[in-house]
Amino acid sequence: MEPTYALGLDYGTNSVRAVVVACADGRAVGTSVHDYPSGDRGVILNPKDPHLARQNPADWVEGLEAAGRGALAEAETDPAFSRQRVVGIGVDTTGSTPLPVDERNVPLAMDPRWAADLAAHAWLWKDHTGAQEAADITAAAKEHAPQFLTPIGGTYSSEWFWSKIWKCLKVAPDVFEAAASWVELADWVPSVLAGVDDPAQVVRCACAAGHKALYVPGAGGLPPRDFLARLDPRLGELRSRLYERAFPPDRAAGLLCAVWATKLGLPEGIPVAMGGFDAHYGAVGAGVRPGTLVKIIGTSTCDIAIAPAEGVPGEVPGICGIVDGSVMPGYHGVEAGQSAVGDLLRWWVEAVCEGDDALHSALSDEAARLRPGESGLLALDWNNGNRTILVDPRLTGLLVGQTLHTGRAEVYRALIEATAFGARAIVERLVERGVSVDRVVCCGGIAAKNDLFLQIYADVLARPMLVAGSPQTPALGAAISAAVAAGAARGGYSSFEEAQAHMTSLKEERFDPDPAAVGVYDELYGMYRELHDSFGSVRGASADLPTLMKRLLMLRERVVGGGAA
Amino acid sequence: MEPTYALGLDYGTNSVRAVVVACADGRAVGTSVHDYPSGDRGVILNPKDPHLARQNPADWVEGLEAAGRGALAEAETDPAFSRQRVVGIGVDTTGSTPLPVDERNVPLAMDPRWAADLAAHAWLWKDHTGAQEAADITAAAKEHAPQFLTPIGGTYSSEWFWSKIWKCLKVAPDVFEAAASWVELADWVPSVLAGVDDPAQVVRCACAAGHKALYVPGAGGLPPRDFLARLDPRLGELRSRLYERAFPPDRAAGLLCAVWATKLGLPEGIPVAMGGFDAHYGAVGAGVRPGTLVKIIGTSTCDIAIAPAEGVPGEVPGICGIVDGSVMPGYHGVEAGQSAVGDLLRWWVEAVCEGDDALHSALSDEAARLRPGESGLLALDWNNGNRTILVDPRLTGLLVGQTLHTGRAEVYRALIEATAFGARAIVERLVERGVSVDRVVCCGGIAAKNDLFLQIYADVLARPMLVAGSPQTPALGAAISAAVAAGAARGGYSSFEEAQAHMTSLKEERFDPDPAAVGVYDELYGMYRELHDSFGSVRGASADLPTLMKRLLMLRERVVGGGAA
Repeated sequence: MEPTYALGLDYGTNSVRAVVVACADGRAVGTSVHDYPSGDRGVILNPKDPHLARQNPADWVEGLEAAGRGALAEAETDPAFSRQRVVGIGVDTTGSTPLPVDERNVPLAMDPRWAADLAAHAWLWKDHTGAQEAADITAAAKEHAPQFLTPIGGTYSSEWFWSKIWKCLKVAPDVFEAAASWVELADWVPSVLAGVDDPAQVVRCACAAGHKALYVPGAGGLPPRDFLARLDPRLGELRSRLYERAFPPDRAAGLLCAVWATKLGLPEGIPVAMGGFDAHYGAVGAGVRPGTLVKIIGTSTCDIAIAPAEGVPGEVPGICGIVDGSVMPGYHGVEAGQSAVGDLLRWWVEAVCEGDDALHSALSDEAARLRPGESGLLALDWNNGNRTILVDPRLTGLLVGQTLHTGRAEVYRALIEATAFGARAIVERLVERGVSVDRVVCCGGIAAKNDLFLQIYADVLARPMLVAGSPQTPALGAAISAAVAAGAARGGYSSFEEAQAHMTSLKEERFDPDPAAVGVYDELYGMYRELHDSFGSVRGASADLPTLMKRLLMLRERVVGGGAA
Repeated sequence: MEPTYALGLDYGTNSVRAVVVACADGRAVGTSVHDYPSGDRGVILNPKDPHLARQNPADWVEGLEAAGRGALAEAETDPAFSRQRVVGIGVDTTGSTPLPVDERNVPLAMDPRWAADLAAHAWLWKDHTGAQEAADITAAAKEHAPQFLTPIGGTYSSEWFWSKIWKCLKVAPDVFEAAASWVELADWVPSVLAGVDDPAQVVRCACAAGHKALYVPGAGGLPPRDFLARLDPRLGELRSRLYERAFPPDRAAGLLCAVWATKLGLPEGIPVAMGGFDAHYGAVGAGVRPGTLVKIIGTSTCDIAIAPAEGVPGEVPGICGIVDGSVMPGYHGVEAGQSAVGDLLRWWVEAVCEGDDALHSALSDEAARLRPGESGLLALDWNNGNRTILVDPRLTGLLVGQTLHTGRAEVYRALIEATAFGARAIVERLVERGVSVDRVVCCGGIAAKNDLFLQIYADVLARPMLVAGSPQTPALGAAISAAVAAGAARGGYSSFEEAQAHMTSLKEERFDPDPAAVGVYDELYGMYRELHDSFGSVRGASADLPTLMKRLLMLRERVVGGGAA
């Protein structure tokens, strides 16, 4: 049989990457990256509001054509390749990144009447303008529909679907009224490729719906109209213009339409797979399976595991989300994360030490020569809050043990260790609730370049740390979804598991725990948990006496808000 | 009456300073500094043992002549001055800095037989080689003579007299055997000026005896022979070659001998005042009196207060020392301190930020623009342990509240605030035990140059911070002691109080508390005390489960000692 190929499209924060992958072995035969032209590297900001982050849907369309064509052109330099043997297209994106569309599924931002209004653009995942709305949704759900909070770990986020739509309703009611519907980026790109011109026909993925929009399969789907109407009657009215069902990636989102087949020079009618979030398809591309935790380690960390439906706990407190079919069909996807990992080191090196990449390397080399426990330091990794397992974005950092002789590299290592301890808290929570973690596969920027990091993680987690073979696991995962959507008969695969077996790999280099270091880190982790529980817990705290970190913040807000001193 | 003068000699760690002072108003008319030629700026080190710090007594003698002559020569440029109207000499020194002497009161280090032996040199205040001996003395006193620990706050230090002599006995028994006696630097310099050639005739000051040598007036003086013999029989034998009585500065240590009168060109027979420690005479020069706390703020801080004998509490837990007559006759001297103050900022600026004096200034300027509470940070000032009120040199630092946006200047300010909170803990302990603190007079390097520091202290302590008028309060205090030793009839004064009234002053610039800042700092101090009590207290700690800071250190020592990882 002649070789077949799949096209994976990875929509990141600053650019879209297209990768043409050989179905036989997952090898990338063509790659192209298109930087978004709008805003600051693709992110539209508002100098008056640091919480705002929007994106221009026109960038996505332009990038789809440019990156797709670029990757395919590069693939053609391989004589074995032919565009006629591309059997499917898969898409992964950031999220939750919803956008308002009109009744033809065209983004309002692409309509001259709304193009100047930032509320009509896509609300990028890291837009935090809806913080108050998120808090109010959490409060309303706690009171009236606590079942919605169970799969998301107990707290609704300002980064998510409803917070953003509700915020839009408040600040730009005209945009809200003009929107026929709201679509996640992960669903919108496949719908474009499939030529869908009616938002009601857009196929919605379980990944975005379940992790970000309070969708619960078999329990009515999205929250009922009366719950939404309690927030705002107009939100209740929107409910019928959204969707009733969301789907795992065991079906295609559509078939490639004639227009886009022409633009890309691909066969019309090949399947366009269900979209999904980058972390989730990244986990697929890293070889996620029951017992394997995939860690995407970058500025922050996203953890993805899957569990067979029969083995899923009803609830894992503090875990971001547990959603049926959000990663692979037949499994519940489990998502957790840490708010600052690479960012924590960057803070130390760039903000405090005022250094650059060279200092990163120098401190990493020096830190590698320290033995576990040698610095006498212990840190909490909460400079950007705690996403899992405390679900508290307002927590702050802590460092203890410093002397007059403590140096930069010792703190650098302590901060890496702190993120490893945070990672262990997540793994322990998963395991104690029945999600097994036998091995860990790492991908992302830090996994690619920082051996010290991975050795410390192996020692702290007392598990081998493996590294994904592909440097682009999200695009590879999207291509895998395309190969599965194509099916075995057309040169793809009949299941994700089968596709992974052929298309994913691990690097030879692996990081095994050193038993002596494991022992030392066991002790240090015990102390980390003491700090974690004492500074992070609400136990013992009351409305009159919140925890110390919160009282510091309350004092700060009072002072900065004017008045004292 | 023609103007009279007093000569003050201030023996520091790196140099000796001589100041000729007008008795009428405390004005310095001649100053000279002589750097010690031996070792590293006067400190003899051992590359193999960072705890060792010795001094060469020959440097002191050479410096006495050089600095004394230099200051007097400069004074002679003032036509009103005459050497014949110098009415007395006073001496302050570092301490505890004991040295072994022979039967003629000559330092063993000046004897060619012992000159090459570091144990025969003076054991400088910051020599910490006797750490084990200090711990053993504390343990022995707790069991057999707890009354000795009361005036010193409960813990004997490795910096003190007996720790050093016992260490010498162990590591250099031949030096120990060759010593006819041991004399504190503060007593030895006056004995040289007075021509004392028999250690039994050296007049010992209550300051050194009471604060460092477990001397208790009216209770047998130094610890009894059987207590010392319990440590080592040879220490018990030494007891009779030391001294039975120590004296407050209400008498002279002797009269200027012919040899030194000739060397300095001063009248033979003028009084040489009792020696004392630099901090204590510094407090005199800063105008200490009941209700006034003097803070000597530099790399570390020394706090000195005095209390009328009838108002002295039996015990102030955690205070370094309470000694009758250690500062001024008729009062108990109370000494407390903080192990790292300027050193804490130096650690941040130089070790972490790798900056210099210019960065100190820049961060200080930036920190001054922050409002109290604005940074959201809170620190413990224990990077070099806690001298008062926890008396625990092994405690370590802590910083909490940092985010990814926390900058250098915010930490810089938080560290200043931490030292101010530590200062408040000392003041509160003094006040609750009956030592009144109505005003604070600052001197030392930081008081001279950092306004932000003093404003924060005023706001945290809720008391005005005054600044001593003299930049050289120790030498001025020594000169005051000389004027008092001379007496009113000879152009001096009849009491320390009278001398201070004429000879000391305050700068016009003062720092008054800002009521709004006081309120914010009240809250922050409450949180500081929570951290202080939770990380610093032994409450709740046991042999099985010491406090977290101690467990980190134990782990560190185990790891560094070899073995794990």
